[in-house]
Parts: sequence; structure tokens; C-alpha cells
Amino acid sequence: MSGPEPLFAGVELGGTKCIAVIARDRQILERAHWPTGDDPTVTLAAIADWLTEQTRRYAVAALGIASFGPIGLARGSETYGTILDTPKPGWSGADVVATLSRGFAGPVGFDTDVAAAALAEGRWGASVGCAVHAYITIGTGIGAGIVIAGHPHRGIHHPEIGHVPVRRQLGDSFSGVCPIHGDCLEGLASGPAIAARAGRPAQDLAQDHPIWDAVIDEIADMLSSLILTLSPQRIVIGGGVGYGQAWLLPRLHLAVARTLNGYLPAHSRAALSDLIVAPSLGADAGVYGSVALAILEQETLP
Amino acid sequence: MSGPEPLFAGVELGGTKCIAVIARDRQILERAHWPTGDDPTVTLAAIADWLTEQTRRYAVAALGIASFGPIGLARGSETYGTILDTPKPGWSGADVVATLSRGFAGPVGFDTDVAAAALAEGRWGASVGCAVHAYITIGTGIGAGIVIAGHPHRGIHHPEIGHVPVRRQLGDSFSGVCPIHGDCLEGLASGPAIAARAGRPAQDLAQDHPIWDAVIDEIADMLSSLILTLSPQRIVIGGGVGYGQAWLLPRLHLAVARTLNGYLPAHSRAALSDLIVAPSLGADAGVYGSVALAILEQETLP
Repeated sequence: MSGPEPLFAGVELGGTKCIAVIARDRQILERAHWPTGDDPTVTLAAIADWLTEQTRRYAVAALGIASFGPIGLARGSETYGTILDTPKPGWSGADVVATLSRGFAGPVGFDTDVAAAALAEGRWGASVGCAVHAYITIGTGIGAGIVIAGHPHRGIHHPEIGHVPVRRQLGDSFSGVCPIHGDCLEGLASGPAIAARAGRPAQDLAQDHPIWDAVIDEIADMLSSLILTLSPQRIVIGGGVGYGQAWLLPRLHLAVARTLNGYLPAHSRAALSDLIVAPSLGADAGVYGSVALAILEQETLP
Repeated sequence: MSGPEPLFAGVELGGTKCIAVIARDRQILERAHWPTGDDPTVTLAAIADWLTEQTRRYAVAALGIASFGPIGLARGSETYGTILDTPKPGWSGADVVATLSRGFAGPVGFDTDVAAAALAEGRWGASVGCAVHAYITIGTGIGAGIVIAGHPHRGIHHPEIGHVPVRRQLGDSFSGVCPIHGDCLEGLASGPAIAARAGRPAQDLAQDHPIWDAVIDEIADMLSSLILTLSPQRIVIGGGVGYGQAWLLPRLHLAVARTLNGYLPAHSRAALSDLIVAPSLGADAGVYGSVALAILEQETLP
């Protein structure tokens, strides 16, 4: 140890970019990034080399890896630490944890990028003090990290909330862009879905474009179900669509309030404005999240 | 203590009937029941008197109370241990925990009837060994208890999964019977909703009645969302409609498999048949659940 506060290494594997850091709590000491190439062997080897170099310089207590999904999280299973079937060319089966931790003897935390972002918001950001909270990304895809009592939730798999069924507006016949489900939430309200519906990218659509009404109602259905199922104290909305359009949030509050219709005091419009919020950590939630995964791994050592 | 295995008291408050027991693990030694009258003071006093009498005879280690909802679960809050706003005449604000535990100095566990049922199935029934599991009742109302790592899940509130929005069949204009949401799941697929749609009680409807197709799809939407959100290892379907119609289960498997469309291996038709199952404890899940709440309270004492 180089001091009383231990150091941690974090890696965020994104769909287009990978970032690795050495950090002391939230303070980032070293940072590097790589494009996420089509050959995971090359990309992962480059990151692993950097990590080996850093762990020679710094006494790193634990490593955290936050990855795009779906990923294998069941320790001891054959797929643990790997990317499962993904549409991303070349990456299905990539052995992320084994490759990135090859030169590192300490504990390694591994979870989805959204679980990591949720964890980071819970430790340093918008969800501090919340026993149950979620981070939802609405961008190229739609995903959620759910944290309960300080730990990312997982059952058989990690959450795949992007693929939930949602109600359609009457007469809306858009078939959706999800290759598996067609018009699941991600098939209707992700960035590519909005672009397909409107004929141009989401960021170019005026706020009063009618597509937004449909998209907001569809996202609100998922949020309403999440609230009625888990009753979280905080839901952070991130991602290119979710966070990129600041005016979306108050319209989501309204739409969720309309769906829940004041069933419980926690469902009032005012309560929902406190419940569903923007990220505190902005676009860096994933990187901080990888550090938060490392810290959690260290804290929960037997 | 009367022996090496401690004794527990359990109370299940149901919409029409209340049951109280003294038990050693799953073995019930004493049992009594009362109609759930319109005056909670009278009903609760009768149960409290019985409990006082029993705790004089038996060395009871902890008391568990499983109640219909919505109920206040935040310890230290004003509404803790009470029934919140309920359509049940006379019961809004009833001070359940204080009244039932007045002669008892030991620890008291309190949760919803469905959380208790989930806990019981996890301890003795269909969900043994599952880290994440749910118990869903489909009857007069629709509700869910969710257990994560041995504890009933709660956020701001307990789950209120009956009120989630679900997709409607094309052309179905039934407005739903939920006084708050109209056509939420409970408004469409609960016992009273099915009776309103079909003009006669659910138990009198033939299996090939077209109303079942709609009801099954609506329940399957909720189940699909639950699976994609929490990825539980087991979902038990109880209640008068859910458990009362055994042929419903394979049709639910089919409908959920259709919605999830094989997205993950855990979503295959075969996997879903293992995931979504009938209760092991039958109609007694709630009573056993109250005992399970007492045991959990005892086990988690600081």
C-alpha cells in the first residue's frame, strides 16, 4: 500500500471505447483509453498490458471491470467473466476477466456497465443513501443496473430491462428495431429506434416532434413497472437519449405520474421528480463504476 | 425455551379470514382463526388475546405478522405496522403490529401476505435454494412478494406488482376494474376483472373461453417484465385464479416464452417450465409465511 487509502484499478468496456483508470476513491490518478476493436484479443491484450504496467507502479488493492452485456456473472460457471452472445462482431465469448486480470493476483469485480454506473451513483452521486436504486441508460441500447443494499442485483442473469414489453399508442404500427423482440422497449425507444421512426437521429428531433410522445409513454411504462415492482428510492436516467435531452426528464415525470395515478404518496408528481433524476457523474458514471466495482469487491472480501 | 428448537407465533391477516398459529419450524402446534370483521379493533383484539394466552403457555421466541396490503413497513415511521389506505371498509390506518404485539416482548416481523408466502416457499417449498424468487398471487387482487438473499424485498414500499401496465389485445375495449388505474394488470386479470369481462366467475369459465387468451397474455407481460428486471430463479404462482386453474401454468409458460423469444438460454420454454411453478405449500403458504417472518426476525437479530 502506498498510503492509508488503497488504490484501485477500473476498466470500462464500452461498445465503441474502452477506458482504464487507477484511482484512489473518486480521484483518478492514471487514465488511458482504446477503441473497442473487432478483435477482442487485441483490445483486451492492450488493456491488460497497461494494467500490468500500472500495477507495477501502484499497489492496487482490487480491479473492477464494467462491461457491455450480456455477460456471464455466475462465478464458477464456464461463462463467468465472458461476453455472452452479442450482436457486436467478434466479441461473443470474449474472455474478459481472465484476460484483463492475468497479471493481477488481487480480487476482481465484474459486472455490467450499467450496474457499475448505478454503483457509482450510489457511492458518489445521485443515489447516495438509497437502499434501492437503479441506473437506466437510454442510448444505442436500453439497460438498467439495479443496486439493492449496496450490491448490484443479479439473479440467473443481470437485468435486461431494455427488452420489457410496453404498451403501444393506438394506431402506431412501427414494427420496432429489436432483432429478437421487434417492439420491446429497446426496439421502440432506443436511439436507433427513434432514428428509424423519425427518419433522422434523436438529437435532431424537435421537442414537439410527435415521436417523442410515443417514446416517452413507452419509457414511462417501463419506469412505472420498475417502481411498482421494486419501489426504488432513486432512478437515474443516463445514456445519449436519456441524459442527452434534459427536457425529457420532466415529461417522463408527467407520464409516469399519469400511469401510476397517485396510487401511493410516493407516486405523486412531486415525489416522482425526486425519484427519477439525471446522473450526477455524467458520462463518467461507467468509469467511476468500474472503480466502485473494485472497491465493493475489496470491501466484501471474506 | 421448551426445547432445543425455539417456538414461533404467526398471524396471517387475510381479506376475509385471519389465522394465528404457534409453530416449531414447519410443525404447527396450535391454530385458531377469526373472520376479518369490519372493525379491526375487534378482530385484532381477539387475535391479541389468543396470542397472550398462547405466549403464557409457550416460550415464543418471535412473532411474525403477514398482512394484506398496502401496509407501512418503514420502521420508525408513523405508519409502521399499520394498514395504509385500503378499499377494505374500516381497515385504513388499523394499527396491526402495535395491537397484536401488545403482550409480547420479543421481536416482531411484519410484511405483506405475499412476501410471507414467498419467504415460506423459499424456506420449505418450491423456492428452496433460490437466491432470487417471487410469489405471485392472482386472485381477488394481484400481488407479489419478492425475496432476495433470504429477505423480502422492499424499497420505499413493498412491491405493488398488481398495478403494472400491460399490453392489451387489439380491439379489446374492456375498461378494467381497478378503481385507480382502470386497465392495469389487476384491473384486467384479477378474479373480479375476469368475472366482469366474462359475466361469470373465473372458476366457471371453460379453458377455451377467449377471455383466458387475453388474461394469460396480460399476466405473461408482467411475468416477462419481472424476469427481464430481476431474473429470479423461481416464480411461484398462487391465488384463487393462479393456483386454482392448474392448466393455466403451461399456457403461461408458452405465452412468456413467446414474449421473451429465446433471448437468453434461461428464457427457453423448458427453462421457463422450471422457473414458473405452482406453490408447494398450497393455500397455507401465508400461514407458514407468518411463521417464516418470525423465524427471519429471530435469525437477523443484531
